[in-house]
Amino acid sequence: MRPKITAVPSIRRLPSYLHIIRQAREDNQEYISGTVIAQELDLEPIQVRKDLAITGIVGKPKKGYPVVALMAAIEHFLGWDEVQQAILVGAGNLGTALAGYQEFQYHGLHIAAAFDQDKSKIGTTIRGVPVLALATLAEYVKNLQACIAILTVPSSEAQSVTDELVAAGICAIWNFTNVKLKVPDHVTVQREDLTSGYAMLCLQMNAYKNCDEC
Amino acid sequence: MRPKITAVPSIRRLPSYLHIIRQAREDNQEYISGTVIAQELDLEPIQVRKDLAITGIVGKPKKGYPVVALMAAIEHFLGWDEVQQAILVGAGNLGTALAGYQEFQYHGLHIAAAFDQDKSKIGTTIRGVPVLALATLAEYVKNLQACIAILTVPSSEAQSVTDELVAAGICAIWNFTNVKLKVPDHVTVQREDLTSGYAMLCLQMNAYKNCDEC
Repeated sequence: MRPKITAVPSIRRLPSYLHIIRQAREDNQEYISGTVIAQELDLEPIQVRKDLAITGIVGKPKKGYPVVALMAAIEHFLGWDEVQQAILVGAGNLGTALAGYQEFQYHGLHIAAAFDQDKSKIGTTIRGVPVLALATLAEYVKNLQACIAILTVPSSEAQSVTDELVAAGICAIWNFTNVKLKVPDHVTVQREDLTSGYAMLCLQMNAYKNCDEC
Repeated sequence: MRPKITAVPSIRRLPSYLHIIRQAREDNQEYISGTVIAQELDLEPIQVRKDLAITGIVGKPKKGYPVVALMAAIEHFLGWDEVQQAILVGAGNLGTALAGYQEFQYHGLHIAAAFDQDKSKIGTTIRGVPVLALATLAEYVKNLQACIAILTVPSSEAQSVTDELVAAGICAIWNFTNVKLKVPDHVTVQREDLTSGYAMLCLQMNAYKNCDEC
C-alpha cells in the first residue's frame, strides 16, 4: 500500500515560494515576511503560514522567516538538497523544452541523457543533453543509478516504454503523456496534465465578466 | 478586485475526470460510478462526489452518473463547450509541443497562429499552426478576436511581449515562463509551473521507502 500524500495543494505551491525566497536571498535580505510572500503570489497570509509550517519552519513576529533557513527547509522537505539523476525518454519538442528548462537546475534535477528510437536524433544533443538509442536504456540506467524517468514519448508508446523503464530499475516516472500507466507498486508515477492549468485559466477568465473584448 | 476562485484542487482535477468519462462514452456506457472514477484516479470516492458536485450534477444511487450529461456539465462549467481562439507567442520547442498537444482539441482550445521574432521561423508552420511575425500581432488579434495568449517566449522577453499582448486586447495569458507578469486588473494570468509536478513526484518517491534501487 502506497502512503497517501496529504496537503497536495500546499506542496504544489512550495516551488513558487522557493522562487520568491531565492530572489530575496539574491537581494541579500535576511528575513522575508509571510505577508510579502502572500502578496507576490496572490494568496492569503494565513495560507502561506500554513503551507510553510509543513516544512517545519516558523516565522518570527515582526521579522518574518529567516531566508537562508527557509530555503534550506523547503529544499530538504522536497528532497531537493540532493542531486537526482534523471533520464528523458522521448527527444521530441516537449523533451527538448524540458531538457532546457532552467528551473530544474535549481532543484537538483540533473537530466543525464535522453533516449529516442529515431536514428536521426541518436548521437546528437538537445540543449546539451546527449540523445542515446532506446535499446541502450537498461544498461545506462544501471550504470548511472538513475531513478527518475521523464516520459515524453507519443501516447501510443507510453506503456511499452514504461515496461522497459520498470524492467531497467527506474522507480519514479514523470508522465507527460495522457496515458494512465500500469506499473508495479514500488514505482511512483506523477502525471503532468497541462489541461489542469487551462481549466484554471478558463474559470478565472469567465469569473471576470467585465472584460468587454472577450 | 478580481473574484477569488475557490475549490482550486477540485477544478484542477476536472480535466482528468473528463478524460475518463470520455472513454466511458466511447465504450457506449450510459452510466459511470463515482467509485470507478475514483479507482482510475487513485482518489477517495467521497472526493470524486464532492468535486463533481461543483458542476451541479448528482449521481443516481447504484447507477452512478449519466455519462453524456456529466461530460456536458463539466465542459459547460469550464467554458469548454465553446471554441476559444488562442494565439501562441514563442514558436520554440515548448510552443511547438503545445501546438501539437492533442488534448487541447477536446477542450475547445483552437490555436489559430503562433508568433515569433525569429525570421527563419516566420512563414513556416509548427504542427500545422502558421508562424507569423511578432510585429503583426496587434492587427491579427484584433481581426481574430482572440482572447487567450499562450506565452512560451524566453523569460527575458516575457514582460515586454506581455505589454504588447495587453495593448492588443488579449485578456487571458497562460504563462509558461517563470516571470511574475505585471498586467492590468482585467487581464487573467495563469502561470504554469512545471516544478510543482516535480515536487509531487519527489515527495511521493521519498514517501515510498521500500524502493531498494533508489
